[in-house]
Amino acid sequence: MYQAKQQSSGPSKVLIFGAGNFGSCLASHLGDSQHDVYMWAREENIIAHFNKYHRNPVYLKDHAFPENITAVGPAPPSKEFIGGMDVLLFAIPTQFLRENLRTLRPKLNVDKMPLMIFVNKGIEIGTHALTLEIIADTCGPEIAKAVTFISGPSFAKEIVDRQPTSVSVASFTEAEADKAAVLFHQPHFRCYTNGDPIGIELSGALKNVYAIAAGMSDGMGFQNNTRAMIITRGLSELTCIGTAYGASPLTFLGLAGVGDLFLTCSSPNSRNYTVGYRLGKGESLDEIMKTLGSVAEGVTTAKGAKTIIDDLGVNAPIASSVYDVLYNGKDTRLAVRELMELPPSRELELPPTAGKPARQLMRKLGLEVDSPVPQWQTMQTSQASL
Amino acid sequence: MYQAKQQSSGPSKVLIFGAGNFGSCLASHLGDSQHDVYMWAREENIIAHFNKYHRNPVYLKDHAFPENITAVGPAPPSKEFIGGMDVLLFAIPTQFLRENLRTLRPKLNVDKMPLMIFVNKGIEIGTHALTLEIIADTCGPEIAKAVTFISGPSFAKEIVDRQPTSVSVASFTEAEADKAAVLFHQPHFRCYTNGDPIGIELSGALKNVYAIAAGMSDGMGFQNNTRAMIITRGLSELTCIGTAYGASPLTFLGLAGVGDLFLTCSSPNSRNYTVGYRLGKGESLDEIMKTLGSVAEGVTTAKGAKTIIDDLGVNAPIASSVYDVLYNGKDTRLAVRELMELPPSRELELPPTAGKPARQLMRKLGLEVDSPVPQWQTMQTSQASL
Repeated sequence: MYQAKQQSSGPSKVLIFGAGNFGSCLASHLGDSQHDVYMWAREENIIAHFNKYHRNPVYLKDHAFPENITAVGPAPPSKEFIGGMDVLLFAIPTQFLRENLRTLRPKLNVDKMPLMIFVNKGIEIGTHALTLEIIADTCGPEIAKAVTFISGPSFAKEIVDRQPTSVSVASFTEAEADKAAVLFHQPHFRCYTNGDPIGIELSGALKNVYAIAAGMSDGMGFQNNTRAMIITRGLSELTCIGTAYGASPLTFLGLAGVGDLFLTCSSPNSRNYTVGYRLGKGESLDEIMKTLGSVAEGVTTAKGAKTIIDDLGVNAPIASSVYDVLYNGKDTRLAVRELMELPPSRELELPPTAGKPARQLMRKLGLEVDSPVPQWQTMQTSQASL
Repeated sequence: MYQAKQQSSGPSKVLIFGAGNFGSCLASHLGDSQHDVYMWAREENIIAHFNKYHRNPVYLKDHAFPENITAVGPAPPSKEFIGGMDVLLFAIPTQFLRENLRTLRPKLNVDKMPLMIFVNKGIEIGTHALTLEIIADTCGPEIAKAVTFISGPSFAKEIVDRQPTSVSVASFTEAEADKAAVLFHQPHFRCYTNGDPIGIELSGALKNVYAIAAGMSDGMGFQNNTRAMIITRGLSELTCIGTAYGASPLTFLGLAGVGDLFLTCSSPNSRNYTVGYRLGKGESLDEIMKTLGSVAEGVTTAKGAKTIIDDLGVNAPIASSVYDVLYNGKDTRLAVRELMELPPSRELELPPTAGKPARQLMRKLGLEVDSPVPQWQTMQTSQASL
């Protein structure tokens, strides 16, 4: 029987898996908040360098990390070590998560569970599974129901500089979301809790596809009206995909939805935006990927998104165009012209049959699915009759 | 009995009231679309200059207007002239609308009504009325029910340059919204219809208050995470105010909501953003207003917004802070600190008792109000139980 570990009222012991850009940033933030932080890395040299100089030699290089952070690894942490933790925070790419959780599961004591927080974003290649499903598959529904997701407009560099930042903290288990919010909350870092982890996950993954579209538009020389249109229509698509999937449309109004979409679509600091910008300037995807120097998640996510869109049968012309530009060699100018030439339509047409994947996932978690029609459905019908 | 005039399948005869920045821009767009356009102005010299040179000497000065636009005025157009029009488009400030509509009403033939389109944004000083209410008061409910509003992320300069642009076209009468969409639609100008004119109006007015907040943050030197937070939390406030008023929360996901909010909050071209930016840099409102050279609507709207917020009893800390900075001499840094120090909360708390003002307005229009609880209410309850 799942039982959450009692959280101490003082500093928590936090183990962060991953020492990348965002993992390091959250380690710094939690260390800065006086928690005892351990950051697990796979690379021996990073661990040694970090523990000696309190700097990450690869990410956020200019940042001096608080001294209460210890890098650990590269061997996976032991059962005893895990057992001593209050919080496990996962900041590793979605594609490596299944394998990592499979190794971790036997070390978890389900009667005394640490708070589990996930900040990775993306859709698993091949299965098109969300993180929640990967967790259910590897750790079982009891654990999956209690995990928490953190997402929102948050460049790592700005967080470590204590720039005012806000994020969504989402879980099916409100008490766990509340704990995570308390853990992260600082005067310069606000946490808003949310009960729709599926919507939060979909936002986090799919926004990167729209960032590519916004970059393409800017790269082609279009101006502010056009970018605002792409972001807004992208949000509308995202909401349609999300509600067809079974998320709440209101989630997309939040920090992990519109907030992160806005940040990612309007900053040259975003890798996905940069891929789009260079495509818009006429470079080929091959050229861009060779010289980008790091992964742009939206390029991979566009494939998973396309499958989800087709499976759900929703209309998502922007995401489909991005897919065609990336994988079918479609000309960017033709893609834009076709988007503008679509017939006029109503502003937000929520799909009539909705929620199947989320209902399947919730059944997998053993959560009550009380109606074959999602709850917000009643709204749309009445709205139309208004 | 209200009867809409049959619209011709070819070019329409359009009379635009107002020759300001946006009125001129829409005149150009409709002239460019081969309609017969008349633009009414109060200033004799503008009329003479425009008809001689096809240029507006005050707004969009570098733009050569299509030759099928005729400036008329300064005398109000006659009943016969109005009777010959297919479309009346109002691009005059909200504060002058009541007086203009009162003069116009006797010239309207309710059995053969032109399409009436409004693009002004704001809340009437003193009454805090929306445009829809001003129309009901002056022209009666039959006419008010059929009017259409156009709103969305659309800088005038970019529209006349044929930059790809999209807008919301909203009316309680779907057929009229469809007509307006057809009138304006072009490959570079997409129209999305929407059935929630109250939400569209509230978005258009209140977004300017949040543009001041975003400008303040940038002026104080805060970065991308903070601006994204302000825009997102601003959208959340806007949605709470709107739903408490009786609009649909989904409207705020659209072009006139998030689209225009995003455009206005992220461009130094926006006057409201500029006011905020200079406040953030430490200038006083008096200094700014003396040197701005044009009106920033958000400064006036903040007052009306404050009254609406207090009347509805909703929690809107960003709009309230902007009001305090503008009118109670509150220090901008203190305002930001207080906002960050608010207790943690759920992401989107829609107000429990909602919709009174919209229900009153809809009764004024003779529209069916079928339930004391707004339609989307059912959603929120179920969402919470999810």
